[in-house]
Amino acid sequence: MDETNEDAQAGKLSSGGLTRVLQGGSVIEKGACSLTLIEQGILTPERAATIRSRQPENGMNIQAGDVYSAAALSMVLHTASPMVPTFRSDIRVFQVRSSSSTDDGNDPTSMAWFGGGADLTPYYLFDADIRDFHQIYKDLCEAHTDGIPGYSYTNMKAACDEYFYLPARNEHRGTGGIFFDDMTATRASQAFVEGVADAWMPSWLPIVERRSGASYTTEQKEWQLLRRGRYLEFNLLYDRGVKFGLANTNPRVEGVMVSAPPRIAYEYNHRIESGSAEDDLLKVLKKPKTWV
Amino acid sequence: MDETNEDAQAGKLSSGGLTRVLQGGSVIEKGACSLTLIEQGILTPERAATIRSRQPENGMNIQAGDVYSAAALSMVLHTASPMVPTFRSDIRVFQVRSSSSTDDGNDPTSMAWFGGGADLTPYYLFDADIRDFHQIYKDLCEAHTDGIPGYSYTNMKAACDEYFYLPARNEHRGTGGIFFDDMTATRASQAFVEGVADAWMPSWLPIVERRSGASYTTEQKEWQLLRRGRYLEFNLLYDRGVKFGLANTNPRVEGVMVSAPPRIAYEYNHRIESGSAEDDLLKVLKKPKTWV
Repeated sequence: MDETNEDAQAGKLSSGGLTRVLQGGSVIEKGACSLTLIEQGILTPERAATIRSRQPENGMNIQAGDVYSAAALSMVLHTASPMVPTFRSDIRVFQVRSSSSTDDGNDPTSMAWFGGGADLTPYYLFDADIRDFHQIYKDLCEAHTDGIPGYSYTNMKAACDEYFYLPARNEHRGTGGIFFDDMTATRASQAFVEGVADAWMPSWLPIVERRSGASYTTEQKEWQLLRRGRYLEFNLLYDRGVKFGLANTNPRVEGVMVSAPPRIAYEYNHRIESGSAEDDLLKVLKKPKTWV
Repeated sequence: MDETNEDAQAGKLSSGGLTRVLQGGSVIEKGACSLTLIEQGILTPERAATIRSRQPENGMNIQAGDVYSAAALSMVLHTASPMVPTFRSDIRVFQVRSSSSTDDGNDPTSMAWFGGGADLTPYYLFDADIRDFHQIYKDLCEAHTDGIPGYSYTNMKAACDEYFYLPARNEHRGTGGIFFDDMTATRASQAFVEGVADAWMPSWLPIVERRSGASYTTEQKEWQLLRRGRYLEFNLLYDRGVKFGLANTNPRVEGVMVSAPPRIAYEYNHRIESGSAEDDLLKVLKKPKTWV
């Protein structure tokens, strides 16, 4: 069964969300692509303070009540085959207008920042797949981040490993990719962010083509379901987007939880054999590798 | 396949945990019973302040560094049949010794408090089952709580509905039962707490006997898996025990997550028919009923 769902909230797209979902496909067991737009948002005192704390000395004088806009595009693709990794990605932009700054050149009245990334959560480790994936983002970073101070593939790869981490398990969620935030919006950074979104399908589809025909056992599928428990644990315990989404007044819960895997298993004290393919994966999740 | 697992931590039981798990049974798909003991625990500044804030004027002068003991017995039984509700229960005791109080009769040097409860999470609503369950705890409360100020069936039923609640969904997790905390340990309250644990099996087993033979469809099982997503959401987002357990240094994650349902499904925008049995359940979860 293939099924798509579409929700346009609040009548028009200018402030709302659009979610498209594919469920029960033979390659994608559950996939979601979401676009969220916020126009004329009003900063809470907490959020204004957070932004102010990240501003340089001559930065904006952001106050509670100032107006912001935000836009985010995100995608998660949960695969039917445990041989194909789950893919997650997003790009987002946040813009704020200061009502108390004067635009004298050093003291801007409006600023914007980008964030985003892309990462893989495999169930079985095919090193070439992971290397190819990282290589694409490394090449992209090297072509773009020269003009974006503080942002390099090395830093954004490390930020990704650090973000997708389950401290209680001492496990990273997947084999990473890149993750970035608070990136000042410039021509250079916009070109980079557009490049990230353009790289999503070229970084994932070749892996799908290579692996989705491979046969797998019931035990291998079960391993995927068990690992998906960790995926949901991360989303509910640590993911900032999920936490932010569920903390809203009258949250659109289906939109927030659309990233949840379609089927999950929990087993007490699941044991894996030392030296098995499952063990190989866990070793890398315990200690992230330099892939390229 | 029936399987039990047992872990005795830290060599001896005097400070550690013991977990017994039944997985893959024909009635209990995953069941866990856990005993946790902490002896010679040392209060953190935050925890000492929390306890102090609950003390009356002439209460203990609890300080960081004071010694505490704690014990908890908990049980969760996830059922194979969607016609049989999931059962959850626990009793716990927390004792603290003040190093700076003088035992002059009004200013005790040691105090203990009980907590616990029992509740049902059904997938289909059989009113008689839920009423019988509540009646047992109501009878128990009426036989015991006269000597326990502030604790009545009505209060503890309301506390249960309030605790097992998903605000983002505007849904209670199940049809409740009783929930209590901060109950000063006396002879009367100890007798009540022992009564709670003694009521666990008599409150649940008759429902199991009545319902576990009933046939059910694939769709009804699927509904159970979808509802279990909410069960896990509650545990990861809100449950104090899970949050406390995972926040420990080197937590025993398998012990903390043993309450997770064995199999879970997430579907985007799952629709149920108005007036269906699934809709009947949701109505009660949105607005808790007075059962007895």
